[in-house]
Parts: sequence; structure tokens; C-alpha cells
Amino acid sequence: MDTKAACRVLGVDTSLRSTGIGVVEAEGSALRVLDFGRIVNAPKLPLSRCLESLQSGVGDVIAKYSPHSVAIEGVFFCKNVRTAVTLGEARGVVIAAAARAGLSVFEYAPRRVKQAMTSNGAAGKEQVRRMVMTLLHMTSEPQEDASDALAIALCHLNNFRRIAAIRPEPI
Amino acid sequence: MDTKAACRVLGVDTSLRSTGIGVVEAEGSALRVLDFGRIVNAPKLPLSRCLESLQSGVGDVIAKYSPHSVAIEGVFFCKNVRTAVTLGEARGVVIAAAARAGLSVFEYAPRRVKQAMTSNGAAGKEQVRRMVMTLLHMTSEPQEDASDALAIALCHLNNFRRIAAIRPEPI
Repeated sequence: MDTKAACRVLGVDTSLRSTGIGVVEAEGSALRVLDFGRIVNAPKLPLSRCLESLQSGVGDVIAKYSPHSVAIEGVFFCKNVRTAVTLGEARGVVIAAAARAGLSVFEYAPRRVKQAMTSNGAAGKEQVRRMVMTLLHMTSEPQEDASDALAIALCHLNNFRRIAAIRPEPI
Repeated sequence: MDTKAACRVLGVDTSLRSTGIGVVEAEGSALRVLDFGRIVNAPKLPLSRCLESLQSGVGDVIAKYSPHSVAIEGVFFCKNVRTAVTLGEARGVVIAAAARAGLSVFEYAPRRVKQAMTSNGAAGKEQVRRMVMTLLHMTSEPQEDASDALAIALCHLNNFRRIAAIRPEPI
């Protein structure tokens, strides 16, 4: 790979029990999916072990694909404090895994990811998945979490390749 | 140190910008403070760097003192979703640092920590600090976050040394 020309992004759709992962590379106008999948934690695994496995799983993907940056979804709504804290815990270990590898982390509102994929901020998950598959020329259907992760990576690539003046700030 | 008899606990009062740390050792009825302080992140440091420094700071304390377990405060109330997510992110990296070292993590409600220290679940921070200093024979005053961390460690030691049947479950 010509690292000067290509830009490689790891998209992460974070949650404690099933985190979506998607690695996308852009070279000029060409987009290519390098990997996608999920980091799954069994329902009975204690919180501390879930966080450890999520962090090491993300660290492994970073080590394998050497992305230039990491993109995650922002949180703007949660059912209650307990849900928000748990989601925060999962986000924390993902963000720290990226920071430890020296990578910048970017955050996008769910509405903005949908907008970037389908021109409709209120699009359904199936609509997003179809567009992800089209843009990346995928023949097999990614699971929902992986599809969301690929959409986040694509949203970031789309956003980041604009003129520098409106580039997003890392968190 | 006779590790068979002594029990060493790391108490953590977690927040993104100033996390309190306290290491307490119990041997029979004798209590001893080994270290206390804060892991501070500058106000302008990006979230990802704060999480990285918090996680490596907690990891360093664990490596230095080899505690048998880690005790943190539970979250039951937050002003809003943003605050809860941020606190969750900080908690996530602390819990994962403990899990990576193979340690169990225990969680106590703020009210329970105050109750254990002062017999009053609604006690003020100053009252908790006075009791922490008395129990640990401290002559210099710990900062507020460090005092809270020491109180959490003491609460866990107090709780854990009861009969096995009512021992708390790690998270």
C-alpha cells in the first residue's frame, strides 16, 4: 500500500456486548473494505472482563491494519444514567486503545452518519446497510453492528477529505 | 509484608480531570495507608489523551503496590447524559486497567461509603476526610479526591473482611 496516498480508517460502533468494527481504505476516489466484524462479549461475562476483551480486541485490529485514525459514533441520547455510564465505559476503552496507538479519534452524530450515507438523517439501518454494501462493492451482508461501523468509517473518510478548513477536530 | 495475612486495596474516586487514588493495607485490625494522591489531566487535554493518561496512571499504581483488589464508587445519579457518558469513559479505563492486571473490581454506592466511614450516609466530605485521617493515623490532610479514594478502599476492607457469605460480588 502507498501510505502517502491512501487513507485508512477504523470505524467502531461501540457497545459493551457487541461492538461493530470496520476498516476502510480510500485511495483517490476508490474505496475498499479491508475487514469488518464484531467483538462480542457473552451475556454473563463480568463488566471488567468485557471491557478488557473489548480494549484488547480493538488494539488487535489497530495493530493488524495500522489505520490512520479511528471514527466512533457520538452519544446524544440514552434511556437512563445506567445505560449512559455503561456505554461510556465501552467508549472509554475503545478511545484509550486508539490513543495508546497514537491515533486521533473522531466522533460523529448518528444522524450525521445516516445523512452521509443516504442523504437522510432519519434513515433506517437496512437502508444504511444497503448503501454501505454498494459503496464498498460488498457481496456478503455485514451484520448490523459491523455495517454501522463501516458507515461511520465512510462518513469520516467523506468528511475528512474535504478542504482542511472544515476538517473536524479530534476528541 | 506477609501477603497471606495482609489485604491491600486500591480505592479509586474516578473522574476525567482529577481522579483520587488511595492504597490501604489491612493486617488483622491494623490499617495502614501506603499511598494516596491524584491523577490530574489539564483542562485543555483532549479526551483521548486524558483517558490514556488515566489508564496508564492507574496501571502504574497497580504495578507499584500490587493490590489484591480495586474498589470504585458506583454511579447512581448524573446531571445529564453527557456527564454520565464522560464519567463512564473514565470508569471504563480504570476498570480495564484493573482487569488487565487480573484484579477483581468492587463497586460501592457513595451513600454506603459515607455510612461505612461516619455511620451517616449523608455525611459531608469534610466529615469523611476527618474519619479517614483518624482511621489511618494521618497527620497531613489528603486532597478531597484522594480522601474519597481512601474512604472507598476502607469501605471495601470493612465490607470484605466480614463472613464470606455476605461478601460482595466483583463487577
